[in-house]
Order: sequence, then structure tokens, then C-alpha cells
Amino acid sequence: MSKKINLIGLLFLVISTVKAQNIPVYQDDSKPLEQRVEDALSRMTVEEKIAMLHAQSKFSSTGVPRLGIPEIWTDDGPHGVRPEVLWDEWSQAGWTNDSVIAFPALTALAATWNKDMSSLYGKSLGEEARYRKKDVILGPGVNIYRTPLNGRNFEYFGEDPFLASQMVVPYIKGVQSNGVATSVKHFALNNLETNRSGYNVNVDDRALYEIYLPAFKAAVTEGDSWTIMGSYNKYKEQHACHNKYLLVDILRKEWGYKGVVVSDWGGAHDTKEAIYNGLDIEFGTWTDGLASGLSNAYDNYYLGVPYLKLIRSGEVGTKELDEKVRHILLLAFRTNMNRNKPWGSLGTKEHADAGRKIGEEGIVLLKNNNNLLPIDLTKTKKIAVIGENAIKMMTVGGGSSSLKAKYEVLPLDGIKKRAGKDAEIVYARGYVGDSTGEYNGVVSGQNLKDRRSPEELSSEAIKIAKDADLVIFIGGLNKSDFQDCEGNDRKEYGLPYKQDELIQQLAKANKNLVYINISGNAVAMPWINEVPAILQGWYLGTESGNALAAVLFGDVNPSGKLPFTFPVKLTDNGAHALSEYKGGDEINYNEGIFVGYRYADKQKIKPLFSFGYGLSYTTFQYGKLTADKKQLTPAETITFSIPVKNIGKKDGAEIVQLYISDEKSSLPRPVKELKGFEKVYLKAGEEKVVTITIDRSALSFFDDKKHEWVAEPGAFKALVGASSTDIKSVVEFSLQ
Amino acid sequence: MSKKINLIGLLFLVISTVKAQNIPVYQDDSKPLEQRVEDALSRMTVEEKIAMLHAQSKFSSTGVPRLGIPEIWTDDGPHGVRPEVLWDEWSQAGWTNDSVIAFPALTALAATWNKDMSSLYGKSLGEEARYRKKDVILGPGVNIYRTPLNGRNFEYFGEDPFLASQMVVPYIKGVQSNGVATSVKHFALNNLETNRSGYNVNVDDRALYEIYLPAFKAAVTEGDSWTIMGSYNKYKEQHACHNKYLLVDILRKEWGYKGVVVSDWGGAHDTKEAIYNGLDIEFGTWTDGLASGLSNAYDNYYLGVPYLKLIRSGEVGTKELDEKVRHILLLAFRTNMNRNKPWGSLGTKEHADAGRKIGEEGIVLLKNNNNLLPIDLTKTKKIAVIGENAIKMMTVGGGSSSLKAKYEVLPLDGIKKRAGKDAEIVYARGYVGDSTGEYNGVVSGQNLKDRRSPEELSSEAIKIAKDADLVIFIGGLNKSDFQDCEGNDRKEYGLPYKQDELIQQLAKANKNLVYINISGNAVAMPWINEVPAILQGWYLGTESGNALAAVLFGDVNPSGKLPFTFPVKLTDNGAHALSEYKGGDEINYNEGIFVGYRYADKQKIKPLFSFGYGLSYTTFQYGKLTADKKQLTPAETITFSIPVKNIGKKDGAEIVQLYISDEKSSLPRPVKELKGFEKVYLKAGEEKVVTITIDRSALSFFDDKKHEWVAEPGAFKALVGASSTDIKSVVEFSLQ
Repeated sequence: MSKKINLIGLLFLVISTVKAQNIPVYQDDSKPLEQRVEDALSRMTVEEKIAMLHAQSKFSSTGVPRLGIPEIWTDDGPHGVRPEVLWDEWSQAGWTNDSVIAFPALTALAATWNKDMSSLYGKSLGEEARYRKKDVILGPGVNIYRTPLNGRNFEYFGEDPFLASQMVVPYIKGVQSNGVATSVKHFALNNLETNRSGYNVNVDDRALYEIYLPAFKAAVTEGDSWTIMGSYNKYKEQHACHNKYLLVDILRKEWGYKGVVVSDWGGAHDTKEAIYNGLDIEFGTWTDGLASGLSNAYDNYYLGVPYLKLIRSGEVGTKELDEKVRHILLLAFRTNMNRNKPWGSLGTKEHADAGRKIGEEGIVLLKNNNNLLPIDLTKTKKIAVIGENAIKMMTVGGGSSSLKAKYEVLPLDGIKKRAGKDAEIVYARGYVGDSTGEYNGVVSGQNLKDRRSPEELSSEAIKIAKDADLVIFIGGLNKSDFQDCEGNDRKEYGLPYKQDELIQQLAKANKNLVYINISGNAVAMPWINEVPAILQGWYLGTESGNALAAVLFGDVNPSGKLPFTFPVKLTDNGAHALSEYKGGDEINYNEGIFVGYRYADKQKIKPLFSFGYGLSYTTFQYGKLTADKKQLTPAETITFSIPVKNIGKKDGAEIVQLYISDEKSSLPRPVKELKGFEKVYLKAGEEKVVTITIDRSALSFFDDKKHEWVAEPGAFKALVGASSTDIKSVVEFSLQ
Repeated sequence: MSKKINLIGLLFLVISTVKAQNIPVYQDDSKPLEQRVEDALSRMTVEEKIAMLHAQSKFSSTGVPRLGIPEIWTDDGPHGVRPEVLWDEWSQAGWTNDSVIAFPALTALAATWNKDMSSLYGKSLGEEARYRKKDVILGPGVNIYRTPLNGRNFEYFGEDPFLASQMVVPYIKGVQSNGVATSVKHFALNNLETNRSGYNVNVDDRALYEIYLPAFKAAVTEGDSWTIMGSYNKYKEQHACHNKYLLVDILRKEWGYKGVVVSDWGGAHDTKEAIYNGLDIEFGTWTDGLASGLSNAYDNYYLGVPYLKLIRSGEVGTKELDEKVRHILLLAFRTNMNRNKPWGSLGTKEHADAGRKIGEEGIVLLKNNNNLLPIDLTKTKKIAVIGENAIKMMTVGGGSSSLKAKYEVLPLDGIKKRAGKDAEIVYARGYVGDSTGEYNGVVSGQNLKDRRSPEELSSEAIKIAKDADLVIFIGGLNKSDFQDCEGNDRKEYGLPYKQDELIQQLAKANKNLVYINISGNAVAMPWINEVPAILQGWYLGTESGNALAAVLFGDVNPSGKLPFTFPVKLTDNGAHALSEYKGGDEINYNEGIFVGYRYADKQKIKPLFSFGYGLSYTTFQYGKLTADKKQLTPAETITFSIPVKNIGKKDGAEIVQLYISDEKSSLPRPVKELKGFEKVYLKAGEEKVVTITIDRSALSFFDDKKHEWVAEPGAFKALVGASSTDIKSVVEFSLQ
């Protein structure tokens, strides 16, 4: 369309501008945000200010009805917009307009190593939230994957702070382009679910700054996340939701954050700490205000009447109050009072396609002996699909991220739809797991009963396996308590429900066995040598079955790589090797900065599958890595180049990873650290030169004595590889 | 503020304009509405169109989630914004953000005869609706007051089509200035509640056009009400919600209406009639779709799946479908997709003050022997307040207009607050009425129990009456079934609960008796000669008690006048004299155009209180009426002038009424008809000349043979008076 200025439209806008001068400053979109905030603040009473600082219902907080400033409506969660619940009960409200597209869990997004996918994810989710009239989406989560037992890992971006930082920023920008805020969570050090409100984390400053904070810092300083959510746990014996070190010293002072800090639901525990240590809005699960004689069930929250009483008694002033309200008003102007935000959309094919594409790019091919995959339907006429996860809804359960999906294509249905015309598909469940998750007293999702004994179930499975050309076992974890689910951690590293025995029997029954691991976590695979083909299938949401089938039958060439290490056994993980897993009320991060591949590298432990690992149906050949300079000054950047060629017969994508190794350092450093990556799409036979540029920050570590980031002059190595343990080429350089 | 154009702002807006060219036409605010409607329509599937035509919940209908077109959220209803209910049950949802200001019932607004009050009412209510995120307010009601027994008269503007027309337009404009649509109701001929879905109205065309339609026509053509609600009853044996005569021939063709027609809840009864006879959105109370095997409880509505099936089978085309969707899209662009609408506000002092001011102006002083009112607190030291309505909440009950008021000042509390420092206030209930209303199975409001016998209650009342300097009896009707309540009509014209006996006993006990009649209807007053002072107190909402006290104690000089006739007895009313009150399934409007004062004039019946009647604490003197010409041509206007002087000692306001009388006509005409009024505020001693201008339309009648409005040349009289029976001056003129 023409870019010429429409003169009539212009005149109209000029008139609007003149007319707009009659409205109060805080409602005037043409005024700077800061001026609008101060104007609104100056009109408010103390009571109106206090009312904004705590929940009024399960997911909303009060606006200023007198001034037309709307309520703030939040909703879970990272993977889709949660269904409506009752005003102050967790039960669903029974609305019929809240079915959504369920997007893949964040581990699957992280496994795409593709920022465009993260952007698409955020944009799509934000559109759904906008249409549902939500102002804040309670996510994404960027807690670092410290142990495979954390029940909530599936909601996060994996073990590496650089990968998580790179992936979280486009997600946030995508959501917020809709006038819907993200709430990056859970800040910080919430790396276990068990006793999450009770434990105190003891971590050294290097690990804090190098491992646990970078993704939050990126979310806040690069992503500009308009809200951030405090975590349940304690740090330095203070709850994270009103923690001076995390919220005041780091978030506000070091990072200059101007957004809103919300508590996790029930994460506040002390009025004065909440006042002085940076909490802005207190949300919660408890509603006993009425029993306390107050008119609103939420008024006895720490930042409710107790705060008001302290102000009235003169014990605390109103400086902190005004600052909190400033943050909230700014959020309002960015979200519910933003007249220019788009309209959103809900449950669309476009969103389902986005979820499917993200899922397809996130699936990781872990093993593929004899090119068993993709399944050749010209030769495979009978396929036995086995395992509960082939028929189990995974969009429901797991805690607060549980959804009411518009639909969910189960793996078995996806396989039947894709291959049912060419092959006979038979199914056996093989085992029975727990029912789908229960959270906050509400059991959601289906409870698939089967009255047969475990022996009958496994016999049936083995029988059909023997009789088939190929077996696809779809197992792993699920969204039930003590699996991949909020509120508790896994009880063991191995697969539940005796799946290991069944897999071993199936491997004996049929050599053409494909195992699809449905999980958001690493699992032990004691039978690894007996199973020729393995896919990491994650939780892929609405389009799960279609995405899995597309990879199984070769419509999509897998291109995901692991965002976390699969250790062979738990003690190959630093947290478990060096710390008590559950330290009661004190959790000691004895492994320090040596998390994930940093620990495996240091200890020279060979993982089951490495960080950054993933196969393809084609083969990529790496050339020689070069740098554009040998030395760089502190102000310079350095660019690395490496040719990568698709020498196989299928188009595909490779994730080229750049690790940096500091050859000599005043403080201990990891063997290498991820500092760059590029996902490159190559047609069969095609070659491209991948270039990655870094600056001094990629060479830095956090000096805990100086309390600052330091890049020490000296020799460094740049390592480029297909995974953290598959380095293809190395080049040396130095920092002056 | 400076009117200079802010250049930076201008530049920003120019950039926005250029940027806006990338959005689809239907989302582009700079495009004409019609073009946006056609663009959206062209993108929609048949299924998406059908989905918009019926409810998805008790108060909402579906938008187009794929295109970002929001759902439409409606809510009752004319006197305040109804509390939230569950998705498909009538029970309140238990939200704590839905307490509102309850405004006076519409009869009280009509009694102000002040268009500025109507505008203030609409604007204030619209602001509350906007803050509550409602797109449509289900009101106002403009059904003509045909009989005092209609249980829903309190929601309407009285008996005169001209007064109702004048008062409804500013209300609509006020609401809609907030980007919230009104839904003028109930269209048409719903003048009784009993059997309202079953009866068919037989009315002649003259009464239809001259009495029952003008207020709807004004609402639509002058007020531009963006929606209109069909009524439950039938006309010409077709339900009004899909009535060819009313919706197609009159509303669409004669009046050129482009807005949305919604059904009353459950008012649709036939798919084909709904398709062809003008219904756009079907709302309802029944939700048995699930039982019919559909996925949505509302999908089996007449304009749901049954319509879709007819289209799919080819039995009906899509022309009507597109036309309905055009109406709804236009509504969306005017309301929920209007980016420029204001933000609203809720439960403010400003709104409460507006309600109080309207209430104070609406209270009618019916009798004031010996200037008993205002109460002189220098002489009155003990006041006995008697009657249940002094302590009964009236914001709750009455049917769909029932509210959750932020607060309600009860009459007794208002009196105590105003006079409690100067006089002793004692209270006795005197009688016990029904509990507050039950509607759609939900009992709402308080049920004030009193276990004493009627004799004990009345004895106590008489005892305190004897002992007081002055007695205020606050009785009348209430919001219970069979009183002033939707769904049923009154069973009798007299006061319920044996109040007549009690009033007579009180009059004997104390000569200084003030009776405050709380009602939205006329009542019989057999004891009229025994009671020296009477106020018509209506239902005044949140500030009731304060408004009544302000008038009782002289802070406000009453200035309301009756918007309907109080007949002495039921048979003094044309509908009751000439028609069976309940004609079973056929209701015959035998009185034709002779409704209200038109019947009393014709039959020369002296009412208990006349239409347009109301006293003041001061006295107004009318001078001589003059006209600016003796003759007018059909194209001319004529202006009447009359001096009015406040000759009393108090400032006050007088409602000067202009009636027109056609001296000779080819068809029978009323003796006179209201065609102008002006509320004039006069300080003590002040005189103003009131001028009222009319044109030929004020001289017209509806010629049912020609089916058009006719003003016949000849002699007319202009009568100006203080009520319909208190004509002060007359002037003759003629139409050429």
C-alpha cells in the first residue's frame, strides 16, 4: 500500500490530539509514561494504593475503579492460557470460551535452539492471552536445570544460562507485542519442588551470577519483561518474594528494573519484608480474610490491611507504597490501558501450526542405528504401537501449567492418521501409570483405568510386538505428581511403572524397536544398547501426535538438540554427586558453577546423551574453523567462521555450537561454556559458512571478590561442534 | 491548556497512520464502518457467522476468535450493572469487584422531567458498565404504563409517549458515550408481566403508532440505540422477537434501523421466523444443548445448530445470515473494538451523587396540607418513623434489575443521619411484608423476619405514633413477586399487607402524619383525606435514604411531577374499564389511544393525582401564554411563551407543560396531548419566560387508513399548565 500520508486521516488525528487535551494526563496516550504514572499517583488515596498491592481473586488484582484504571488479570502459564477458575476457588469456572491451543513445553522450545521459534511461540501465546483479555501471562520459567529430579524442569529452558538467555528474550518480546506482560519466573534459585516454600538455598556468588541469574537478567534487561515473579524458596534465609539481595540489590539496583514484582501464589510471608524488599503485588492461594472479619477474603494479605495499619500508625511511611504503585501503574499503561494493542486471536489453525512447527523442530533424535528411522512405509506393513503415553493426554496435569486444550492429537492418533492407510497399526498399552495430575486439590484430566494385571498388559504388548514389522514404544514420564509435575520432585531417575523391564522384553521380541521418550526431564536408559532408535518427544501440546508422526515417517527431518545433559546415572550429575539432594531446610549448591555439561567436562564423565546433542536423517560435514583476528582488544568483537555442508540425501538443519575455553584464569572456570549457536538449514548437498561473533562478555567470569564481571587477558580457545562433546574444530585467540 | 499542535505528537501520529496501513481493513479505525464490516464479513466462515447469533453463556455471545473480534458481553439492566453470574446458571458468581452504584428506578428519572438528569444517569451508568467491561446494557425500558398493575412499570418512563421519548434519548446518548451500547426494550407491547410469553396483543394501528411505538422510535432514530431487545409477547400471533410487522416492516424499513436486535432471554421460539423476521442474537435462559448431544449448552438455540442445518441442507440461503452478522459486526466496532472509548469508573462518589441528585429531583410532593413539610426541626423534637419500607433494601429484588449495591442508605438511616441530632427518632415496623424478590430460582436480598403478630406490630406503631410530634409512615410496595417485580403483575391496586388499616389508625393517632409511598406504580389511597402530607418516594437506589431526608427536611425543594396518572380506582383506568385485564392468551387494548390522562380527559374522570402533577415548597405564578404567530404553514415552527414567577420564599423548580388540543379532526383524538415541557429553576421572587417551540409533527396523528402521520389544517389550542389537569393559560392557533 501507498506510504503517502493520508491527509484527511492526518487532519482527523490532529483534531484528536487537540481534543485529547481535555482528558487527564494519566489517560493521555501522547504523554510520556513517567508523567502519566506521576499524574495518576497524585490522584490516589492511600487506600486505593494499598488495594492495588494484593490479589482480589485467584488471578486478578484491583485497579482504581474511581479513576478508570482497570484491574490486572493474570493467568498461567508458560504453555498456553489456563482455563478460567472460580473467583476464589481453584475449580474451573465451567466457561466454554477458554479452550486454547496448548503449545509445546518450554524444554521442547529450548531444544529447537531457534530464536525464531521462540518469537513465534511468544507471539502466538500472547495473541491467545490477549483474546482471553489477560494482562499478564505467568511465565516463562527460566530456572536452571540443576538435577533431572526437579518436577518442574519441563517448564524451563534447560541447563545452560546462555541458551536460556537467548531463547527467553524473543518469547517475552513475542508475548508483549500483544500488550500482554510476561512474568518471568521463579526468581530465583527455585531448582527443586519438594519443600519449595521451606528450603533455603546456599549458593556461592559465582554460581549465582554465572549460572542461575543470567537468563533472568536477559529477560529483564534485553527482553524487558514487564513483570517478574518471585520464587517460593529462601535465599540467605529470606523468602525470595521479599528478598533484599535478589529484589533490591540485584534486580532493582544492578539491573535497573522498573517493572512489577509479583509474588508466587502464597509466596509472601512477612509484611515488613514485603514493604521494604521489593514486592509489588502479593498473590496467593489462601483466602481466609472473611474469617478474620474483613469484607474481602484477600484483605488480610501481607500487603493488604496489615500494611495499611502500619501506615496509619505511622510505623512505616509511604515512600515504598508510592514506588510499588508506580510500578503497577506503568504495567497498566503498558497492558490494559494500552489503546494500541492488537486484538489477539484464540484457538486458531495458525497457532496450532505454530505449536506443531515448534514441536517438530524440538524433537531430538537420540539414536538411529541402521537408519531405522524414518520408518519406510513401503517395507513396514504392520506397526505395533505400545505404551500408555501413546494415548495419554499431556496438556492436562503438571500443576499450574495444566490447560483446557481445544484439542490434543495423541501420539497413537497421529501415527494412525499419518500411516494408517499404508500399514496396519495395532496398539497395546503395556503398563498403567498414575492418573493425570492433581493440583491445588483439583484433579484434572483423564484417569485411564485398566483392570488387567501388569502381567496381562505386558504379555499383550509383547505378543503384538512379535507379530509386527516394527515396534514404537511410547513411554517415559507423565504429568502426574512425582513425575513432571509442579509441587513435588521425581522419586527416581529411572522410568516409572516398570517400563525398563517392558522395553527390554520388547527389544527381545522385535529388533526394530523405536522408543519415544515423553518427558521434560532426562531419564536413565539401562537398556540403551538393546534399543536401536530413540526419540526425545517432550510434551508437544495440541499437535503432539502429528509432530511425532511427521518425524517418525520422515516428513520432517529432526533438528532438535538437547538443552540439558542426560547423565547415565544420577551421581554423574554434580548436584547429586556433591550435595545432598534434599538437604531438608538447607539446600547446598556444592557443585557451584559446575552444573550440567560443566560438571561432566570437569570430571570427564561421558553422559548418556550430551548437552547440545541430537541426530538428523542427514549428515553434516564441518570444515575448518577460522577467526577474523588472532587478538582482540577489550572493545573489539571477534568473528568465527566455519563451513558446514549437508553431505547426506535429505534436507536438514544443524545447530552449530560455539564454546569458549579460557586457557588460564585466576579463578577456576569450566572447561568450556556455550557462547554462541546458529541453526543452519541446508538442502541436501548444500554448504554454508556459519559465522558467530562474540565480544569480551563471552570471555568473562564473575569475580566474587570484586563482585564484578571480569575478562582476563590471555589465551582462549573457540571450539565449534555439533554438541558439547562433539567438537569439530578449534581455533585459538587471545584477549589483550 | 494550549491548543497549539504538539509537533512531536503529530509526527508520532503520522507514523502510526502509515504503520496502520498494514493491518486488515476491519481492524483499521481510519476506515469507514461499513467498509470494515464488509471486510470482516468476507473473511468469515458460515460456522463463525452462526456462532455469533446466539448466546454462549447467560450474558455473552461469541465473537470471532480467529479474527480477534471479541465476544459481546451484555448485562442488566436499567438501574445499575447487574452482578456477575455463573457461566450458565443464574446464581451469582461470588465476585467481589461487581458492587455498583444503584441508580433510581426509571419512573423516578421520568418524574424529574429533566433531560439533563437523564443524560447524567446514562453517562454515569455507562461509566460503571464500561469499567465492568460490559459491551451492552440491557435497558432502558420504554414500555408504556398502561395499567398500574403491571409488575414492571417501575423500570419504564410512565404513560406518555412524548415524555418517554424525550427522556430516553439523553439516557441512551449518555450510556453510549462510553462505548457501551444500550438495548432499548421490550419491543413492543409488553405492558403486562403475567403470561408474558404466552399472550398476543390486539391493538389498533393508531394506538400502536401514537402510544406504544414513539419512545422506541425516538430511541432508535434520535438516540441511535445500538441494540434493541424484542419482547416476550406476541403481536399478530407472532412472537415479538421474530415479528415481521415490528422488526422488519417498522423497525428496519420504516425507521431504517441498522443496529442489533436481541431477543429477550428465551424470547425466541422458531428458527425460520428468527431467520426471516429480523432477530440478530438469541439469548436465553435454557441450556439443554448438552442433553441434546451438542458440545455447547447453547448450540441448540433456534439461531444455532438448527439454523446451520437449514443452510447446509440448502433450505435457506445466507443472505439473512450475512445481514445479521453485519449488524453484530457494526456493534462490535462501536463497542468492544472501539479503541477510543473512555475507561469508565465504578462505584464512585460522583456516581452516587448523580443518583442522589436524580432521586431528589424525582421525588414528587403529592400533598402538603398546612405546609407540614418540610419538617421544622426547631419544633419537631420526636419523630416516629413507621413502616417496613423504612428498613427494607430495594436495590435487591424486582427481577433482572436486581443489583449488588456498593451500599444502600435506607430511609430510616437517612432520616436519622439528617435529623438525629435535633430530634429523637423512634421506629416501629408496623407490618411485615414478603421477602425480597425471587427471580430465576435465585432468592436475593434480605428476608427480614419478625415473629410478632400483626396486631402486636401495629399496636407498637400506634403507640409510638401517639407519643411523637410527627409521624413518617414509609410504606407502599416492594420488590417482591406480585409487587413491583418482573415476571408477575400486582394482584390488587390497593396497598398490600393491610397498610391501609394501619395508615388510618396512625392518622387517628397523630394528625401530623407524612406518608411516603415507595413504589414504581400508582396505588389506591382510600384514606387520602385523613393524611395531610404525601410524598411519592419511588425506588431511589444507593442514596435513597439521603434523598428522601433531603426533601423531608427541606434541604431540597421537591420538583418532580408524576409521569403517570394515579386513578382513584382501577376502573378509572381505560385498560381496566374497557378491557379484560387478563385476557388469557389474547390481550385486547380496547381503550386504543386513550391511555392514562387521555382516558381521564375523555371520560372527564378526576384522578387521585393527575399526570404531570407535583407540588413544591414554594409557589409558582403563571402569566399569560402567547404564540409568535397565529397561523403556521406546514414547514414552519411555532413558539409559545409564558412568564413563570416563583412567588414563594424558597428557591424551586417548576415543570411547565405544553399540551396541544386539536379542535377538529377527521379521526377521534385525545382532548389534549403533551408536546413540550421545560423544567425551570427559579430563585425565590425570580421570574423567567419559558418558551417552547413545536412543529407540525406535534399536531399530527397517525391515520391508520393511509398508514401515515397526518397533520390536518385547522384550529388548534396550546394549553400550558402545571399538570395535565391544572392548565394555566391557553392560546389558539391554526395550521394552514
